[in-house]
Amino acid sequence: MQEIYFAITRALADYARCIDDDRLEEWPDFFVDDCLYRITSAANFREGLQASLVFANSKGMLMDRVSALRTANIYERHAYRHIIGNPSILGVEGDLVRAEAPFMVARIMRDGATSLFATGRYLDVWRGAADNPKLVERVVVCDSSRIDTLLVLPL
Amino acid sequence: MQEIYFAITRALADYARCIDDDRLEEWPDFFVDDCLYRITSAANFREGLQASLVFANSKGMLMDRVSALRTANIYERHAYRHIIGNPSILGVEGDLVRAEAPFMVARIMRDGATSLFATGRYLDVWRGAADNPKLVERVVVCDSSRIDTLLVLPL
Amino acid sequence: MQEIYFAITRALADYARCIDDDRLEEWPDFFVDDCLYRITSAANFREGLQASLVFANSKGMLMDRVSALRTANIYERHAYRHIIGNPSILGVEGDLVRAEAPFMVARIMRDGATSLFATGRYLDVWRGAADNPKLVERVVVCDSSRIDTLLVLPL
Repeated sequence: MQEIYFAITRALADYARCIDDDRLEEWPDFFVDDCLYRITSAANFREGLQASLVFANSKGMLMDRVSALRTANIYERHAYRHIIGNPSILGVEGDLVRAEAPFMVARIMRDGATSLFATGRYLDVWRGAADNPKLVERVVVCDSSRIDTLLVLPL
Repeated sequence: MQEIYFAITRALADYARCIDDDRLEEWPDFFVDDCLYRITSAANFREGLQASLVFANSKGMLMDRVSALRTANIYERHAYRHIIGNPSILGVEGDLVRAEAPFMVARIMRDGATSLFATGRYLDVWRGAADNPKLVERVVVCDSSRIDTLLVLPL
Repeated sequence: MQEIYFAITRALADYARCIDDDRLEEWPDFFVDDCLYRITSAANFREGLQASLVFANSKGMLMDRVSALRTANIYERHAYRHIIGNPSILGVEGDLVRAEAPFMVARIMRDGATSLFATGRYLDVWRGAADNPKLVERVVVCDSSRIDTLLVLPL
C-alpha cells in the first residue's frame, strides 16, 4: 500500500510540474490511450450530470487540445501554479487504483497579477500504480461553477 | 517513524476530505471520546490565552456542533477546500504522537465566489498512530484574528 | 529513493515551519556554509538572467539578512504561511540530490488581512539527504514579477 501511495504522490507532483512548466505537449503522456478526462463542477457532479466544461475520451483528444491551444493563442498569456494535497487511496482492484486528491490552482497573468483561480479535487483511476502510473480516468471536480470561460490550460 | 508519518499524513487527508465533502456527521469520528478541539488565533495562542473561537472537550460536543449547524441553517451555504501541508512529527510518547501541519482553506460560496478564507496550523496529539490514528487534541491556530464571525464549518 | 524522498519532504516542512513560526534566526541552519540562495522571477529565470531579488552565497549572508531584518523594522509587521507541495526528485549524484517543490505563500498582515502573496517553486540541491539534509543551493523562482518591493521575510 505504501508503495502505491508513494508512486501516486510522485505522479501527482510530476503532473502539476508538467503543466506549470508549460510543457503541455508532455501532458497527455500521463494518460493511457483510451483515457477519460473531464472537468466538471461540484454542483453538476453531485447531481450526476454528465455535462462537462472539458471532455476527452482518448489521449489523442488531449493532444488535439494542446495543439489547438498552442495555435489559437487568442487568450491572454498566463500560467498556473498547482498545489496538490496528499491523495487518499479509495480502492485497489488488480492493477487499477482509485484515488482522490484536492488541489488549489493559482493563476498568474502576464502582468504578474496572481489570484486563486480554482479549487477542487481530482477523482482518478490509475493503472500500473506500483511502477509507472498512468491515468485511466481523471475527473476534475471544481468546487465553483464560475470557472468555465476562463479555462484554457488543463487542470 | 516512517510508518507513523505515513499514517498521520493519510489521516490528515481523510480529515480534509470529510469536511470538504460535506460529510460532517463523520467528522467527530476522527476524535477520541475525551478529546480537546479548539480554534484560536495566532495572537491569542502566542500570549497563552485560553480564549477560543470554538471550544469542545468531548466528541459529544463535536456531534452537537454538527447537529446545530445542520438544523440552524441561518448562514449562506458554502463549502471549504482544505489543502494541508505535510506534517512535522514533534514527539512520540508511548502511543501518543504530537504533530503539526499547516493548512490553507478556501471558501466557495453558493454563487461560486472563491476566496482564501483561512490559513494556519494544526497542533495535534494523535493516539494509535501506527494503526488507526485518532485525535486526542487538535488546536487549530488561525494566522489571522479576523476570522470569527464567518466560522460555521469546522476547520 | 523512498528514504531520500521522505527526508526531503520532512526538511521542506521544517523549513516552512521555521519561517512561519518567526524563528528566523534558525533559518540559516537549513543551509550549508557555502550555500547559494537567491530569489528570482520566472521571467528572469527563463531568460537565464542572473538578476535576483535576493542573493546570498554564504550562510553568513543569510544570518546578516536576518539581523538586518530584525533591527531595521521599517516594514509593517506581517507573517507568512507556506504550503509546500510534494517534491519531485530530479537527480541524485553522490550525496547531492536535486529536487523541486512548488509553493504558495499567504501573507497575513497585523490587522488580519490575508492574501495570496507569492507562488512559485523551489529549485534545490540538498546535501546528505539520507540523514540530515542541508541546502547547498536554493533558487526560489516566483511565478510573478510583481513581488519585489514587498519582500521582507525569506521565502
